[in-house]
Amino acid sequence: MLTDIEIAQSTKLRPIADVAGDLGIQEDELEFYGKYKAKLNESVFARLKERPDGKLILVTAINPTPAGEGKTTTTAGLGQAMAKIGKNAIIALREPSLGPVFGIKGGAAGGGYAQVLPMEDINLHFTGDMHAITSANNLCCAMLDNHMQQGNALGIDQRRILIKRCLDMNDRALRNILVGLGGKVNGVPREDGFIITVASEVMAILCLAADMQDLKARLGNILIAYTYDGRPVYARDIKAEGAMAALLKDAINPNLVQTVEGTPAVMHGGPFANIAHGCNSVRATRLALKLADYCITEAGFGSDLGAEKFLDIKCRMAGLAPSCVAVVATVRALKYNGGVPKAELAEENVEALKKGIVNLEAHVENMRKYGVPVVVAINRFHTDTAAELQVIDDCCRKLGVDYALSEVFAKGGEGGMELAKTICSVIDREKENTHFAPIYPIDAAIEDKLKAIAGDIYGADGVVFTNQALKSLKEIKALGGDSLPVCIAKTQYSLSDDPKLLGRPAGFRITIRDLKLSSGAGFVVAYAGDIMTMPGLPKVPSAEKIDVDENNVIHGLF
Amino acid sequence: MLTDIEIAQSTKLRPIADVAGDLGIQEDELEFYGKYKAKLNESVFARLKERPDGKLILVTAINPTPAGEGKTTTTAGLGQAMAKIGKNAIIALREPSLGPVFGIKGGAAGGGYAQVLPMEDINLHFTGDMHAITSANNLCCAMLDNHMQQGNALGIDQRRILIKRCLDMNDRALRNILVGLGGKVNGVPREDGFIITVASEVMAILCLAADMQDLKARLGNILIAYTYDGRPVYARDIKAEGAMAALLKDAINPNLVQTVEGTPAVMHGGPFANIAHGCNSVRATRLALKLADYCITEAGFGSDLGAEKFLDIKCRMAGLAPSCVAVVATVRALKYNGGVPKAELAEENVEALKKGIVNLEAHVENMRKYGVPVVVAINRFHTDTAAELQVIDDCCRKLGVDYALSEVFAKGGEGGMELAKTICSVIDREKENTHFAPIYPIDAAIEDKLKAIAGDIYGADGVVFTNQALKSLKEIKALGGDSLPVCIAKTQYSLSDDPKLLGRPAGFRITIRDLKLSSGAGFVVAYAGDIMTMPGLPKVPSAEKIDVDENNVIHGLF
Repeated sequence: MLTDIEIAQSTKLRPIADVAGDLGIQEDELEFYGKYKAKLNESVFARLKERPDGKLILVTAINPTPAGEGKTTTTAGLGQAMAKIGKNAIIALREPSLGPVFGIKGGAAGGGYAQVLPMEDINLHFTGDMHAITSANNLCCAMLDNHMQQGNALGIDQRRILIKRCLDMNDRALRNILVGLGGKVNGVPREDGFIITVASEVMAILCLAADMQDLKARLGNILIAYTYDGRPVYARDIKAEGAMAALLKDAINPNLVQTVEGTPAVMHGGPFANIAHGCNSVRATRLALKLADYCITEAGFGSDLGAEKFLDIKCRMAGLAPSCVAVVATVRALKYNGGVPKAELAEENVEALKKGIVNLEAHVENMRKYGVPVVVAINRFHTDTAAELQVIDDCCRKLGVDYALSEVFAKGGEGGMELAKTICSVIDREKENTHFAPIYPIDAAIEDKLKAIAGDIYGADGVVFTNQALKSLKEIKALGGDSLPVCIAKTQYSLSDDPKLLGRPAGFRITIRDLKLSSGAGFVVAYAGDIMTMPGLPKVPSAEKIDVDENNVIHGLF
Repeated sequence: MLTDIEIAQSTKLRPIADVAGDLGIQEDELEFYGKYKAKLNESVFARLKERPDGKLILVTAINPTPAGEGKTTTTAGLGQAMAKIGKNAIIALREPSLGPVFGIKGGAAGGGYAQVLPMEDINLHFTGDMHAITSANNLCCAMLDNHMQQGNALGIDQRRILIKRCLDMNDRALRNILVGLGGKVNGVPREDGFIITVASEVMAILCLAADMQDLKARLGNILIAYTYDGRPVYARDIKAEGAMAALLKDAINPNLVQTVEGTPAVMHGGPFANIAHGCNSVRATRLALKLADYCITEAGFGSDLGAEKFLDIKCRMAGLAPSCVAVVATVRALKYNGGVPKAELAEENVEALKKGIVNLEAHVENMRKYGVPVVVAINRFHTDTAAELQVIDDCCRKLGVDYALSEVFAKGGEGGMELAKTICSVIDREKENTHFAPIYPIDAAIEDKLKAIAGDIYGADGVVFTNQALKSLKEIKALGGDSLPVCIAKTQYSLSDDPKLLGRPAGFRITIRDLKLSSGAGFVVAYAGDIMTMPGLPKVPSAEKIDVDENNVIHGLF
């Protein structure tokens, strides 16, 4: 089989105006970025305001192997398959972060014959959204340091600055730094650090903002520091939000691209699924629902992280209600959850699979708690054996959950038709029984919200707070944090907060070691473990293999 | 009179495809960035390769006041005026840096009725070139730190790293920093610092590269560090150039925009005019010369910095030969050069003007040394008096130099017709006498090149080297530096290296305190004074006034 980039480069793309035309979008509602990318401007939102929404399908997953479960691939392929079965569908995805492209992870636009294109552009600068976010965030930081330099009228405590500079780059040397060195004219010395752009609160805000004025209000509401006497300092206190919003004037608009089969895809925003909510923008999802009968979207990592936040944070804030949740699983990951080491995942191991399948059971049961029908999507690998697939079949029958195999990586939309048909029929069949509701009430105390997620979703016996967490909790409550949803930052490899507890752990408690108020985004981040917000490069970075040849063709992206 | 942004926002722009169409550019040779910006892709270069070049006009200036002399405004207005007198002209400008937009300086797309549009886009992210350069530069830095972290096979000395990270932001707190703190997993601790993106060697390289393969070779040739045993380390040694080039695959292509009067303008690249060569890209200039009979371009600061480098570095490397040099002067700046304080420049002061006009004489005489005809362009202000203009008239007659008033800021192209006619007639009249040659031979020793510029252009009695400079000179010569042109980094306010010596200083020597090899760009930077490569924000940054209103209109840019 060809590599992802070979498939991408051998695909004849449709002009994006044609893809838009199929959706009823007029050319003056598009801002082109080359021939195959466009932004959808504000006028589309206005024109379609009263149109009824299509059905929202969330693609999530079980706890993944380090290689991931193919959620984006399944999402792209499902969109392609919908077209094959005669349905009018659109895909709504996150846009990839540039940093990991040069590290181990590579790009994030699907794979095989279920990809979103143009792959090189999407994985490099795309339409500049990430750079705009980087600039907006860093402008706020520069203004904050400048405020201290120019007399510090607000009395900002340089030991208590919360906002960090960011870059869309895997660069561990910037994790912990000292800035403002070199004497009086060169700033106020202090400890600082860069995070990767997708981990910034500005990214979370862009993804949750309803429109430009909401965006600006949220930007102004970012808690950036405390004063010497413990008062909060917001971005609006240093008058940063207007210029930050100006920097985001194009980034706020969703991007339209297409799959290898020409299916329309909006790709917009890409917040982390640990310290942020991990799904594409509210604006893109809302618009996608106006543009097609089915909108297929995804959320980061497993359902305990991405889907929980998609449902409890994004859907609640934006007034969205999914019609179906598809849980992606692989034989490989279920064996991994059954204790098989990474290197042996290609070998048949029915016993390990039987042991690990409890992980799938947990995710299916969890998603059902939201009052939405669930479908299991088995992302099939050529190493899967009949005996292994039978174990999954047995499990799904026992659970009474609909399921289908997906072979979109190897076969494109053709390989996802069974899945598409299953999902459409489940949506039809269950529509009277579908009553989406978040897992916790918004007016519960932060502690109770955390207990609800830990108990109902993670399967934990309770939540433990460190002294630092209790201190932060008190401060955050004083600033009104109890009125906000919570966003738990924890490992993606386990339902628990310990990456080594695979399968379906029991008899554990979740330890919250600290909390942070993302008051602009509108949630409280609770840290259950160390979360890396600035990745590093590996021993041999992918960057070393990326090249441009004499015909200006890029090689080495994957 | 309306503000710049009001004029910009009240202008009805032509679709950029129409502007391109006037130049004979076909729609499939454009990559659109919205409706009013486009990149010109590689196919245009190929198609026009054999077409004869138009005439190249360089706009430069005398030593400026801190507010600048209106070179960009004059350049834009001159392009507009050319159209008014029936000539087929194109403008080739640098693209603005984002950082200064939020500080004191504001945007850099001309002013009044001689502006390049869309002003907000151009001054914010434009087509993403600056961000691409930032990413390419910072990827190299991340790979370098990662190399040291992962065992440091090359033996890179963390005390001798030459490349710095960059951001397109005025952020003084990042000038001097410590990175890699926090223990073994977080990198190798070392001193570092950020520069503003336009000061990066990657920017200089983008502006000098002939094509993608030349770009890649130059990127690989960046001297990034020395090893513990004093050997040079280039970007290619850490295999960074391929991925850096991939990040620049779109940025390498020139951007097409238009003036308020619909005149075509290519805007591409924007290196500093002190530590780099200070003019737009070679690719943009070459293409512009194929697209029109007259290509009007500009170089940064006064002719001692920008024009000297344009002529001795860019024109020499790219095989370009200008047909005319226009020296922009203002009554205000000539009075400033005559000793009048900034606050009093609006008042008539004929004596000061007579004293300061020696500065204009110097710049005219200097430019004539390159074998190209010179025209003086007086950028007229409403505060200029008849008596003051008479002093300039007398001076130009004495020098035997053609001159014209320009009122393009207030009147647009209409206000530049006299200047346009003068330039066209001088080009015609002098074409037999025009024999462009650089001021120094390329094979002279670095010291001799520096002496030539200091003597012939600055009017200095000689060049002094500090011990540090002598040390660097030795290293750079060992690496082949004698074969490269020199790029002197010095103050823009004086012909000398002392910003306080106004007018036409004499009896001074230039002190070179250090040198740096920009081996990727292909020049040796000689530092004559402290050059700030990361600006700071002022007490009240412009950013505080920038806003987006409920109709998504940006305010407060200037």
